[in-house]
Amino acid sequence: MRAVELQQSFSIDSLQVVQQADPVPAFGQVLLRMKAWSLNFRDLMLVRGQYNPKLKFPFVPLSDGVGEVVAVGPGVTSIRTGTRVCPLFMQQWHAGQLNDSHAKSALGGAIPGILSEYVILDATGVIPVPEHLSDAEAATLPCAGVTAWNAVISSGQLQPGKTLLVQGTGGVSLFALQFAKLAGVNVIATSGSDEKLTRVKAMGAEHGINYRTQPDWDVAVRELTQGVGVDHVVEVGGSGTLSRSLKSVRAGGAVSMIGVLSGVGGDISLLPILMKNIRIQGIFVGNAEMFATMNQAISLHRMHPVVDRVFKMDAVRDAFQHLASGQHFGKVVIEP
Amino acid sequence: MRAVELQQSFSIDSLQVVQQADPVPAFGQVLLRMKAWSLNFRDLMLVRGQYNPKLKFPFVPLSDGVGEVVAVGPGVTSIRTGTRVCPLFMQQWHAGQLNDSHAKSALGGAIPGILSEYVILDATGVIPVPEHLSDAEAATLPCAGVTAWNAVISSGQLQPGKTLLVQGTGGVSLFALQFAKLAGVNVIATSGSDEKLTRVKAMGAEHGINYRTQPDWDVAVRELTQGVGVDHVVEVGGSGTLSRSLKSVRAGGAVSMIGVLSGVGGDISLLPILMKNIRIQGIFVGNAEMFATMNQAISLHRMHPVVDRVFKMDAVRDAFQHLASGQHFGKVVIEP
Amino acid sequence: MRAVELQQSFSIDSLQVVQQADPVPAFGQVLLRMKAWSLNFRDLMLVRGQYNPKLKFPFVPLSDGVGEVVAVGPGVTSIRTGTRVCPLFMQQWHAGQLNDSHAKSALGGAIPGILSEYVILDATGVIPVPEHLSDAEAATLPCAGVTAWNAVISSGQLQPGKTLLVQGTGGVSLFALQFAKLAGVNVIATSGSDEKLTRVKAMGAEHGINYRTQPDWDVAVRELTQGVGVDHVVEVGGSGTLSRSLKSVRAGGAVSMIGVLSGVGGDISLLPILMKNIRIQGIFVGNAEMFATMNQAISLHRMHPVVDRVFKMDAVRDAFQHLASGQHFGKVVIEP
Amino acid sequence: MRAVELQQSFSIDSLQVVQQADPVPAFGQVLLRMKAWSLNFRDLMLVRGQYNPKLKFPFVPLSDGVGEVVAVGPGVTSIRTGTRVCPLFMQQWHAGQLNDSHAKSALGGAIPGILSEYVILDATGVIPVPEHLSDAEAATLPCAGVTAWNAVISSGQLQPGKTLLVQGTGGVSLFALQFAKLAGVNVIATSGSDEKLTRVKAMGAEHGINYRTQPDWDVAVRELTQGVGVDHVVEVGGSGTLSRSLKSVRAGGAVSMIGVLSGVGGDISLLPILMKNIRIQGIFVGNAEMFATMNQAISLHRMHPVVDRVFKMDAVRDAFQHLASGQHFGKVVIEP
Repeated sequence: MRAVELQQSFSIDSLQVVQQADPVPAFGQVLLRMKAWSLNFRDLMLVRGQYNPKLKFPFVPLSDGVGEVVAVGPGVTSIRTGTRVCPLFMQQWHAGQLNDSHAKSALGGAIPGILSEYVILDATGVIPVPEHLSDAEAATLPCAGVTAWNAVISSGQLQPGKTLLVQGTGGVSLFALQFAKLAGVNVIATSGSDEKLTRVKAMGAEHGINYRTQPDWDVAVRELTQGVGVDHVVEVGGSGTLSRSLKSVRAGGAVSMIGVLSGVGGDISLLPILMKNIRIQGIFVGNAEMFATMNQAISLHRMHPVVDRVFKMDAVRDAFQHLASGQHFGKVVIEP
Repeated sequence: MRAVELQQSFSIDSLQVVQQADPVPAFGQVLLRMKAWSLNFRDLMLVRGQYNPKLKFPFVPLSDGVGEVVAVGPGVTSIRTGTRVCPLFMQQWHAGQLNDSHAKSALGGAIPGILSEYVILDATGVIPVPEHLSDAEAATLPCAGVTAWNAVISSGQLQPGKTLLVQGTGGVSLFALQFAKLAGVNVIATSGSDEKLTRVKAMGAEHGINYRTQPDWDVAVRELTQGVGVDHVVEVGGSGTLSRSLKSVRAGGAVSMIGVLSGVGGDISLLPILMKNIRIQGIFVGNAEMFATMNQAISLHRMHPVVDRVFKMDAVRDAFQHLASGQHFGKVVIEP
Repeated sequence: MRAVELQQSFSIDSLQVVQQADPVPAFGQVLLRMKAWSLNFRDLMLVRGQYNPKLKFPFVPLSDGVGEVVAVGPGVTSIRTGTRVCPLFMQQWHAGQLNDSHAKSALGGAIPGILSEYVILDATGVIPVPEHLSDAEAATLPCAGVTAWNAVISSGQLQPGKTLLVQGTGGVSLFALQFAKLAGVNVIATSGSDEKLTRVKAMGAEHGINYRTQPDWDVAVRELTQGVGVDHVVEVGGSGTLSRSLKSVRAGGAVSMIGVLSGVGGDISLLPILMKNIRIQGIFVGNAEMFATMNQAISLHRMHPVVDRVFKMDAVRDAFQHLASGQHFGKVVIEP
Repeated sequence: MRAVELQQSFSIDSLQVVQQADPVPAFGQVLLRMKAWSLNFRDLMLVRGQYNPKLKFPFVPLSDGVGEVVAVGPGVTSIRTGTRVCPLFMQQWHAGQLNDSHAKSALGGAIPGILSEYVILDATGVIPVPEHLSDAEAATLPCAGVTAWNAVISSGQLQPGKTLLVQGTGGVSLFALQFAKLAGVNVIATSGSDEKLTRVKAMGAEHGINYRTQPDWDVAVRELTQGVGVDHVVEVGGSGTLSRSLKSVRAGGAVSMIGVLSGVGGDISLLPILMKNIRIQGIFVGNAEMFATMNQAISLHRMHPVVDRVFKMDAVRDAFQHLASGQHFGKVVIEP
């Protein structure tokens, strides 16, 4: 089978399509024929050497994708061939709290990823996907979808009428917007592009703020909320945006810390956290229980994830370059 | 001013429109000119002597209504004349858990109610209402609205994609349906009338079950949920329905115990509660914090409570008779 | 190996020690040599035909015990031979909420139990036990210990200074008392025996009420709590005690519904549930995450479960008769 | 009456004992004759101009103290003269979540403080104190006590057997240690003094780490927890310690952000927050509901807050200097 490996060094140009032996499922395992994959910023960080500098080459990247179960190993009774499934981002995190052992089972990071035509996983490490989704759409769920669901719903517990701030138009932010709308939440979105703001408003965002024309966007957020601030921020920017996020959130509000697009460290003022009783909740994707509930919501509302562009496996470098450009609106997808 | 009193004995016919002295607000108080009231089943129980047999006559009934602040007493700075407000069902329950002291401040039960042209309340005992609501609509919020909000949202914490069962088409059940829809929840409704089921489906209920043609409606509920059961039941029936509700709910699910329309006691099998880890949560309306959040949601979504019929104050007995008939769909309202 | 089977009919006399083939662990499984078992009231109900009337004979009963891992099957890396472990009550419930699938993996009920010299379980279905415990003590943890932990700590979330009511001196009630004391909780205990009350006070209960000399024990509970009521009740009695428990609990308080010693159904007044915002939480044991946390607490505090009497396997009928007599104080244990 | 004012400029030397007119309670108010006060680091920051640079002089500082109700204004029925009470840190925060309006009622910061012989407060802004406490002990509760209670119990929800890290031996850290012990929690304490570590161990801390002899104390914390990390950190240091705290906490663990003794800003790596799903919860004291529950726990366990030294009102500058020296172990108290 064909697979993509990161070879020898950290760069997009080190990604190579190679030939590997076809895998065979052992006891308790399933064999997936992959139908689509999708990229996360984490994958780009990994390829650039910013995520796990000690990575051993060659390494097959990616956590997100969808495939069909084409064979099952001995002892597998919970799933049948023909079922379309996603892998769990963390193969071992089924329910309850995250622990170190779960974290060591993260695909395309702690363990090898799934960017190959066939993938072997434990039968307990996959989950059926909503039927109405295309392969490209279903491929976006394991990391980006579940992360946003965890932030807004499982951990965020946002009630109808509450206000959420989402940043930019990457995959997690658009999922967060969509889940917030399902939950009756008021959404303020930021972007550096008026055209993209028009699109997020068409998706249901009540308000848009262009952070290029209004660099002190936290002021705009407070104005939009009668000086109170938003109830919740889905923070994807990291050190470049966190200080403004802390100014944007109300007393007693919360920030889901999801991404570090603009930096992993920096001078953060801690005073607003304690003076406003703010909760910062780190979000490292989520567990299978969250994934299952998210699927119920997506199915009920026949929601469609936003796919930006689809690349062929051979054009994997182009796909990564496109993500790196920041031009995308939604998810970058790869197909075999 | 004119007021309605329950005089001498427990019956709808004991309700009388009488003349009372105009009240004057003291320190910290506000004077409301009432614009509309609405009835709850609790009011009917009180009038029938089923709620508080030791009630002292004469007694002004009702907890739910809306009025305009027409005067404020000394020391009131938090609210201005001209504001349209609802009373809090429990005048002292502003936030946190219910306690006995809060319960002793329940309007139209523990303390006299508000069915009079003018009403005096503490400035901390009223809350502004969403502007887009008519007076009749706003009058339905304090007990019926907040109870449903507490059951489905504050206590229920139902996530999008989860399934809720509501019973009948009384005020609380329709509010529960509406709030569930705002929150992206899947709703199954029961009713004894196919016509009413058509109406609840038009309001967004995914499924309707006629409990007259299908008396074992719990079987239908389990079929509609692939044998799993619903995540949550808003139980308004009491002993006549609770056993079927317990059969309708999934393992780990919950029942909000709100009403006892069909009886306050009876032979209930306790085994499902423990064998399925069911949570039964008694709901005695809710606090001001819930009321404020509910108002945010109603305003954002420009939601309209369902008003069944509007009676004049002089026809107060007709209003109670109409509620007693069980023919209503939504709230029964009274206007001055 | 020797095992105990319930043969042909429902009665204590149908329990027989029989010879069975020695089991061999398959892929992912472990083999335990059992060192002790303990009885729960559920086991007695099962033997009497009150728990699962459709049980297929012969049936090996019991969920609670402790054994040493003496062999592991292929693929087992998480646990080593020589480790002393308890089975999980529900073999599949590791974390998160209970679901039907978990419930179908309950030992000694949904699936056969462990009252045999050797037991085969999935490697994921066992958990190491605190080292300072004797075998007899460790054998009491899976059902009785975890149930009490879930009621008082995981679900109950009782804070220091809060007040808990425990009923009688069975295994779950004594565990609940012990865990409550670890958590700084004020405990009121009931019993029909002054001598047993003396013992529970020696274990830390602040107050004891003899329900024989004071049949209206809820009045005594309210007096002991200045008329407020307790924060939480661990309800083991079922229909015979629930009405008084509901009168004993404060507004906003909770009842953990654990047992039905005195009946599974009966005339229960529902009104206090809603008028006092009471939460009734069914407790069907608990998951592995709770078990692990409980073990941390037991180890830190070097807590010892209360063992009433130890019987030999040959005297299994005597052990059940002793439990049935209600004379016990703590757990009834069996050893090989 | 005599009062202490911060006059003209920000410095300890600007604190002056002055004569003020005796206050008289108005409608709904109570008059307290103060019996003791205690200092918080916040008071020192305020005096130094680090807390509220726009403060208007003269300003009476302090939030924490205890007094006897010696007179009540009209309309006060909830409290009687002769009762010993503490003020609520935030006069308006009775229950539920913090909001801006609550924050604007913080004594000795947003509004003037209580370092005067007599103090006027709303009757709803005081709370009776446990009887077994001395005046000096009771004076420590409103800010330091409630903050620690909120961190460890209300927000922290630490279960018995869990592990907490406390930093240093200031008032909040010692309260956190004491409340953790009441709740059955395992405590690791840090200090720069072996002598102080001996004292915290005598108070029940299982482990002590000297951060002078072991500057990389997070390594020691992980060793003491078998590489897992602690469940919770009560962070009082701010930017100087937060990075090590984030390394000390387990996946899924939490940090209560309480103080900024070592700095309000600085280069914080955000990656551990998301990669370990860490929750950072800002703690700005707490509400009256928490205060009342804390008092129940203190009373039940006859717990005594740790008083370091007691100064006379005339020696107010010495008291602040002593706090500034960092030599204290527990609370610095002032008496009339």
